[in-house]
Amino acid sequence: MSAIERASELPVSTPQERGDAARNRLLLLDAARTLIAQRGADNVSMDDIAAAAGVGKGTVFRRFGSRAGLMMVLLDEDERAIQQAFLFGPPPLGPDAPPLQRLLAFGRERLRFAQTHGALLSEANRDPDTRHSAPLAVMHTHVRVLLESAGTTGDLDAQADALLALLDADYVNHQLERGLSLDGLGDAWDTVARKLCGR
Amino acid sequence: MSAIERASELPVSTPQERGDAARNRLLLLDAARTLIAQRGADNVSMDDIAAAAGVGKGTVFRRFGSRAGLMMVLLDEDERAIQQAFLFGPPPLGPDAPPLQRLLAFGRERLRFAQTHGALLSEANRDPDTRHSAPLAVMHTHVRVLLESAGTTGDLDAQADALLALLDADYVNHQLERGLSLDGLGDAWDTVARKLCGR
Repeated sequence: MSAIERASELPVSTPQERGDAARNRLLLLDAARTLIAQRGADNVSMDDIAAAAGVGKGTVFRRFGSRAGLMMVLLDEDERAIQQAFLFGPPPLGPDAPPLQRLLAFGRERLRFAQTHGALLSEANRDPDTRHSAPLAVMHTHVRVLLESAGTTGDLDAQADALLALLDADYVNHQLERGLSLDGLGDAWDTVARKLCGR
Repeated sequence: MSAIERASELPVSTPQERGDAARNRLLLLDAARTLIAQRGADNVSMDDIAAAAGVGKGTVFRRFGSRAGLMMVLLDEDERAIQQAFLFGPPPLGPDAPPLQRLLAFGRERLRFAQTHGALLSEANRDPDTRHSAPLAVMHTHVRVLLESAGTTGDLDAQADALLALLDADYVNHQLERGLSLDGLGDAWDTVARKLCGR
């Protein structure tokens, strides 16, 4: 069961409370997003999020079950937004650009995502229950399709896996800690992607 | 501290016992290697190893500290043997072959190693203390040097990382469980390695 499914199974007390519930859910997610952007996920507690959203701590637990539950909902929402962008959005990410250009844009977009969501993605990687597997499968398929459309020869799954290793959150965090820049990691993605496509 | 260093710090009681100790150590490692090859590491206990080596269980703990200690010594010894082969051994692994040929041979050799030592390597990967980091660093340097000697352009570290993702023990196990063959994984390694080298 994905984090989205789990979150959607949380009880929403009674019909007349649903408007408040939805509003509180949005307030809490916005507050969490802002605090995480300011301090990093490791330095944001449930108390901080409740206070910033102006709701009681009990509301956070009613809406998300736990801190981990809230973090997974946040990650899933942002994952869906980035998926939307690379599947249906404007070029160079979306379908109106040529496949190699989309592949290069996807790498740089996803590197930014890995930097912004580093701590959350690492937590999700370490959870054997989710292993963050649905978004990974979508990314694999996307990269595989773009490689194929770009005329790549040979084992497409393996080439997609080799490329995607450069976007792994733990890998990206480690390289950034070593002093590499996001631009440098984007250039590396370009190099490998172009070579696999024979350019 | 590496597993090798930890193992070498275990007490060796008195001078006159050292001959016996060294003999028992070899007997235990041989017994463990044979049992693991027959049943897989998950199905081999300390009792099994002691019985197969014909020594008391206390001797296993005196020599290796724990089951995990014995497993790490075993892995380190085999890692050193494979390193010896690709750094100093005969072609196509060793230095008398051209760099691309060495790189292709290295991939297939290391895939076999990942299959044979899958369970041990997975355990080592999950140990945050060792993270199996020394052998990984040696492999990274080796692949980077071969890519460079083969005339590869662009970010060599990133290309080495993308290639090495295809040899990761958890990745290899997962692909073998999905029904892929070691030859198929070797072909995939060939494809990516040749493309990075511009062949």
